Amino acid sequence: MEAAIKARRLIVRSFAAVILVGAVLLALPITSRGGGFTNFVDALFTSTSAVCVTGLIVKDTWDYWNFAGQFIIMLLIQFGGLSYLTITTFTLLLLTGARIGLRTRITLASQWNVNSLQGVVKLLGFTVRFALLVELIGALLLSITFIPYYLNSRGLAGGIWASVFDAVSAFNNAGFDIHGGFKSLSEFAQDPVVNLTIMGLIIAGGLGFVVWSEIFQKVRQKKFYFSLHTRIVLGVTLALIVLGALLIGIFEWNNPKTLGPLSIQGKILAAFFQSVTPRTAGFATINHGYATLPTLLITMLLMFIGGSPGGTAGGIKTTTFFSVFQYIKAVLTGSSRVHVAHRTIKWSILDTANAILILNMTIAVISIVLLSVFEPALHLHQIAFEVFSALGTVGLTTGITPNLSVASKIVLILTMFVGRVGVFTILTGYIFRPELPSYTYPEEDIIVG
Amino acid sequence: MEAAIKARRLIVRSFAAVILVGAVLLALPITSRGGGFTNFVDALFTSTSAVCVTGLIVKDTWDYWNFAGQFIIMLLIQFGGLSYLTITTFTLLLLTGARIGLRTRITLASQWNVNSLQGVVKLLGFTVRFALLVELIGALLLSITFIPYYLNSRGLAGGIWASVFDAVSAFNNAGFDIHGGFKSLSEFAQDPVVNLTIMGLIIAGGLGFVVWSEIFQKVRQKKFYFSLHTRIVLGVTLALIVLGALLIGIFEWNNPKTLGPLSIQGKILAAFFQSVTPRTAGFATINHGYATLPTLLITMLLMFIGGSPGGTAGGIKTTTFFSVFQYIKAVLTGSSRVHVAHRTIKWSILDTANAILILNMTIAVISIVLLSVFEPALHLHQIAFEVFSALGTVGLTTGITPNLSVASKIVLILTMFVGRVGVFTILTGYIFRPELPSYTYPEEDIIVG
Ligand SMILES: [K+]
Ligand SMILES: [K+]
Repeated sequence: MEAAIKARRLIVRSFAAVILVGAVLLALPITSRGGGFTNFVDALFTSTSAVCVTGLIVKDTWDYWNFAGQFIIMLLIQFGGLSYLTITTFTLLLLTGARIGLRTRITLASQWNVNSLQGVVKLLGFTVRFALLVELIGALLLSITFIPYYLNSRGLAGGIWASVFDAVSAFNNAGFDIHGGFKSLSEFAQDPVVNLTIMGLIIAGGLGFVVWSEIFQKVRQKKFYFSLHTRIVLGVTLALIVLGALLIGIFEWNNPKTLGPLSIQGKILAAFFQSVTPRTAGFATINHGYATLPTLLITMLLMFIGGSPGGTAGGIKTTTFFSVFQYIKAVLTGSSRVHVAHRTIKWSILDTANAILILNMTIAVISIVLLSVFEPALHLHQIAFEVFSALGTVGLTTGITPNLSVASKIVLILTMFVGRVGVFTILTGYIFRPELPSYTYPEEDIIVG
Repeated sequence: MEAAIKARRLIVRSFAAVILVGAVLLALPITSRGGGFTNFVDALFTSTSAVCVTGLIVKDTWDYWNFAGQFIIMLLIQFGGLSYLTITTFTLLLLTGARIGLRTRITLASQWNVNSLQGVVKLLGFTVRFALLVELIGALLLSITFIPYYLNSRGLAGGIWASVFDAVSAFNNAGFDIHGGFKSLSEFAQDPVVNLTIMGLIIAGGLGFVVWSEIFQKVRQKKFYFSLHTRIVLGVTLALIVLGALLIGIFEWNNPKTLGPLSIQGKILAAFFQSVTPRTAGFATINHGYATLPTLLITMLLMFIGGSPGGTAGGIKTTTFFSVFQYIKAVLTGSSRVHVAHRTIKWSILDTANAILILNMTIAVISIVLLSVFEPALHLHQIAFEVFSALGTVGLTTGITPNLSVASKIVLILTMFVGRVGVFTILTGYIFRPELPSYTYPEEDIIVG
């Protein structure tokens, strides 16, 4: 168990270290367009948001930061996304107990050896190659729109830079963009190339490396029987995207400030985009400041659930959501076993899933209460949306981020950090120690509910 | 198990039947001051709110209903409160599994026999006598203030009637009052007799019959070693009241529309009152429409947790909250046992507690989304406050209830019903059947979080 704790502390410390280095660089005059020092809390907020691949911003990435600043932000995103992938997978291997059993079923993982660095190096190689390849394809596709769009205003290099930056940001589910004016992708709401490419990059990064490596492996072997993990990830992801698009489409169809003015195809495209982006990309093609309350609530739910584990996505994860659902069903039927597709899911995994759900809910409530204290002028829906966005490392906003107080910014910095590193990782790495008492007390019942 | 299902259906049907009878009576001209028929949805809302001892009202109880109407509402409250007590305890006895073990530790329960009606009749007798005695004492104390207060406007009978009605409503945690103008007890914010009596009645009803019978028994025997259940109930109740009062006091201290104008003693009294009432009485001595957002959020949390089981209170219950907390701690430490005060709590009880928490959270989210669709003009904090109030059968409001649409009223009627009867009771009584498959599948792990 000591190895697991060390691994968790390594994750916490490596994230914190990179964030601090990024914050110092972004505070220096060399990274801002104005050429002055940047307020340290704002630099820290930006660095945290980039490394935690969130995308909430207090300074517009294009308007405020110069090329050096934008380049550093891109590196921070790439480090946050990729490093997390590898550190996560590395940790999974080090962890004993619930998670290690996974390697017996995922064929790729069978070549990794917990005590050998060779497997990890191989994994790192695969991850980096996969990420760079997908980002390259994404950038090429985006440049079809962005090069002509920016030719007059920013020149050829400007169009290429926007394509590269957005591709890296989208694959890592970071949600940063360099289109200026806090507009995100709203100028491209009806552009099918931009929409489909960004959605593709988001989903590619969000499915998780474990799933992708299995898909690659299985396709190469022409065997199409996927692991339970992969089937749950794909099933829940598809269901949430379709259901989310349907509901958002219904709630915004005639809203003159969002989908209203678009063509029918445009509305459908934008509804799907707004359903994909909360899981947990953070790009937007509508202004959530004008969205209806039902849309904001559905979006908050999607942000809370988030993407899939072992990838670039945040949130409690699709598999956690699925596990809690199965757990509740089992408790209601008085069953002590959860059967899914002719497989049994261990009760300890369900317990972990519950704990993750309830702990994340608790963090969200605490952050919302704190922000409500520090921002007396804001409405609950704005505060809750911002907190779920930070916790799920999403980056969507109703537009309140730049005007928040210093106290609120610090709360959100901590929320982003906890959301990315994981409340479970932090608590089991630093506060809660494995307890295996050798004694036992007599049982006594209490009445609940 | 079949007996447990029958008992659950009995609870659901008996509540529904009494609500319908009440709704019909309240719809008739004989019960309204105006002498006309009352809109059936409003009558149903009022009847549901009374039987479910919630206290949300669409028509002010004093201004709209005549004496017959008020008397019927009081009977519905008494039936809802008392009947629930007895039906709940009856059901606890019928249930096998997690809950039945309780009777081996609570001395009183040892005389009850699951298959004999005699024990239940005895229990019913105790409950009715206890309730009527406490209500009588409460009414006498309240009359010290109410008789002189209403002597000129309503006469002696008016003062007595207000005392009796409020005492019955407070003991049953119903939150109805007959002070007029949707004002609840705000005219008596600084009256110590009214405040302390109402708080006493609320806590007496909210602690649960199981706890009271044990306290009576132990005091008579001069043994002061209480059961785990009672100690948890008392500890959590005390902690939540003090913490709630502290936070609400801080957030409202200088609010000119709530605690601001009061004396220091008045502020402390009102802070405590506003901390006790969300669990789950529903009386108010401040206008929550003017409370700050942090106060509303803290109040929502207290409403969600609610009172203690087997009493007149709603919410997920203090013991459920405590169990979930212990569960999370156990999962974080990798422990398979929960030890509290030298006793072990069965894992199946923790599972039930988790399910209750998550199911109630789910119902709350669904209700909030539905109300957000039906009430485009309302803010999230108003909607969420109303839903948590209905689900916890509390009855506090920011003032939006009378102007809600018919669709929203129906959503709240269902939410109150689910909140009172219990989502667990409904789902296990009607939808989920015990499943004990004789086969088992191989285990396969998935990654969560
Ligand atoms: K993001
Ligand atoms: K109530």
